[in-house]
Amino acid sequence: MLRLTAEGCQSRRERLIEQVEADLIIISNPRHVQYLTGFFVTSLALAHHAPIFLLIETASGKTTLLMQNMLGGFADGIHVDTIEPYIWYNARADAGVPIFPKALDALNAHLDKLTFSTAGIEIGSLPYGVHVSNVTDVTSILLEMRRHKDPDELDLIRTSITAIEAGHKAVRSQIRPGLTEIDVFNIMMSAIAKQAGHPIVPMGDFAGGERAFQGGGPATSLELQAGDLMILDIFPIINGYKGDFTTTLAVSGELSSQQAKLQKALLDGMAAGEAMLKPGVRAGDVHRAIIDELRIEGFADGFRHHAGHGLGLSHPEAPYFVPNSDEILREGDVVTLEPGSYNKEEGYGARIEHNYLITEYGYEQLSHHLLPFA
Amino acid sequence: MLRLTAEGCQSRRERLIEQVEADLIIISNPRHVQYLTGFFVTSLALAHHAPIFLLIETASGKTTLLMQNMLGGFADGIHVDTIEPYIWYNARADAGVPIFPKALDALNAHLDKLTFSTAGIEIGSLPYGVHVSNVTDVTSILLEMRRHKDPDELDLIRTSITAIEAGHKAVRSQIRPGLTEIDVFNIMMSAIAKQAGHPIVPMGDFAGGERAFQGGGPATSLELQAGDLMILDIFPIINGYKGDFTTTLAVSGELSSQQAKLQKALLDGMAAGEAMLKPGVRAGDVHRAIIDELRIEGFADGFRHHAGHGLGLSHPEAPYFVPNSDEILREGDVVTLEPGSYNKEEGYGARIEHNYLITEYGYEQLSHHLLPFA
Repeated sequence: MLRLTAEGCQSRRERLIEQVEADLIIISNPRHVQYLTGFFVTSLALAHHAPIFLLIETASGKTTLLMQNMLGGFADGIHVDTIEPYIWYNARADAGVPIFPKALDALNAHLDKLTFSTAGIEIGSLPYGVHVSNVTDVTSILLEMRRHKDPDELDLIRTSITAIEAGHKAVRSQIRPGLTEIDVFNIMMSAIAKQAGHPIVPMGDFAGGERAFQGGGPATSLELQAGDLMILDIFPIINGYKGDFTTTLAVSGELSSQQAKLQKALLDGMAAGEAMLKPGVRAGDVHRAIIDELRIEGFADGFRHHAGHGLGLSHPEAPYFVPNSDEILREGDVVTLEPGSYNKEEGYGARIEHNYLITEYGYEQLSHHLLPFA
Repeated sequence: MLRLTAEGCQSRRERLIEQVEADLIIISNPRHVQYLTGFFVTSLALAHHAPIFLLIETASGKTTLLMQNMLGGFADGIHVDTIEPYIWYNARADAGVPIFPKALDALNAHLDKLTFSTAGIEIGSLPYGVHVSNVTDVTSILLEMRRHKDPDELDLIRTSITAIEAGHKAVRSQIRPGLTEIDVFNIMMSAIAKQAGHPIVPMGDFAGGERAFQGGGPATSLELQAGDLMILDIFPIINGYKGDFTTTLAVSGELSSQQAKLQKALLDGMAAGEAMLKPGVRAGDVHRAIIDELRIEGFADGFRHHAGHGLGLSHPEAPYFVPNSDEILREGDVVTLEPGSYNKEEGYGARIEHNYLITEYGYEQLSHHLLPFA
């Protein structure tokens, strides 16, 4: 699998240490363990829920990863000084102590051997009963750091996007009346896994027929009809990183005049949003540019979700393109734009979406799937 | 989706309350929130990682679920008295406080309104900084309860098994030289999702060619060759519950004499294990019955993993069919038997597996997929 690099992880750990006043940093959110070491356990793995802890001694920079013994296969090539497996279940004796208490015991046993008086922790993620006292929360520092994507992160995001593009292409060529939403889900996710070369976490909205009038939701057994639109908003986890982009497809390959009008409005909305994408722009103003464009043909009332957001290790993340966000776009942000409009009474619903990297003077478009509905 | 029933959840809460000496029980492991309320959030959902907390006031039995606002769609028809959403991100303003600290704040705000002096908690899962003091760990009580599957749990397990059977059937009819492991993964998971009627968490081992000599691992781009065996060990999460069963298939539909000999040994091992399945039997003795059978034709040294285990909300769980387990089989256990043998030097590897419910006098076989390699 593709991993975050040693250089990238070291740089991020150094930037974190610089900002934290503590002898020890304990990372307990698995997304952040990956961010700082490259260690990624897919949620498709047997023991993916086993707690993991990264300890960073701030004076020396020394790193120790505590992980459950069954996760060893995920640790090849990660960037830590020491890996300490705790044994939950070894397939020789019954498991005994449950996995969560066992992980806590392992962490405390390790902490008891270290000398430290202050600890940077992740509030809400570190478990109750950990042997720490003078603590400071590092969550916001990490989220702030995550906004600026490093080169190794961009490599992972680009890899995710390439895989998702293969999915969109496969569905565009195969969608037709008589398929169910689940059939389309299967075409999409099969093409993505094939391109990725390994199983991926198959997340996305698959909403056809009247379900498109609501904007989203997971695939069902609903059968697609001629004349329907289907919304395909695809955001799998691939090597720990996300792409997240949408097409709406005409099931029979033909558009009604209303659908064609909606298509044009969304494309115009997207263009209006793209024109705003550069460092220094207020996130709320990106939302306004898009909704103002949708208003021209009467599609603004049907646009009730965010106009886009940041993405990377998860989604949505900052910056948020919503009316009341004062966040400012920066070089290094990776964002989506996703104009959509939905109306149950008038019987329409569609959304389009691309991903972008904010650059020094503007943006680079990262996703290259086709947007026309047919 | 299929849910645990109101009666089942209430009965489990009552049994839990009976065994816990505390004014309040705080459940923080999402698997156990489902077990006690029916609330299940698939890990394919956008905000699946958002912490959730179930509070049970033991004197009155009153239940309150604290969950992130974006998870409302998963709460229809669940069995709690009160649902209190905490607002992390409402798509009008930027998210502000990160989701984990936000969840902790919401929990503490609620606890501060309650009168209690003792709390039953899940050690290793409840977060640091929760406003509790006199605590007792309820983890082992819950794990012990989970061994006896209730009727509503069995309905969910049977539904999972039916879906997985459809996957095994599809692969058996379509496997052939030239497909990659990923192609087989896609056939398997597509058929399972189609049968389930919704996306499922696609977990499993897909190991063909020389990878089968190691026993498992996720699908890769390896291309299957005539003469290969492929191990298919499938354990997706469907409505929160698992089936977990394996076939080994001959890619070209024909077996070498060595492969045929291995097939017979595994089927004999399975039969020897099945003969042990009844209440009162020691789990370690089930392992011994299987490995003794494999030893006859020299396949015991290649059998290094467990001979089976319990399953339900997760896997593996108790009882564990391993040499040193003194656990005793009980009516209501749901277990697998999975004889296998692998040898890199001699170039073989295969595994078969079925799922069983332990009944008053013996067992009911739950999975009905075919076991022959060809």
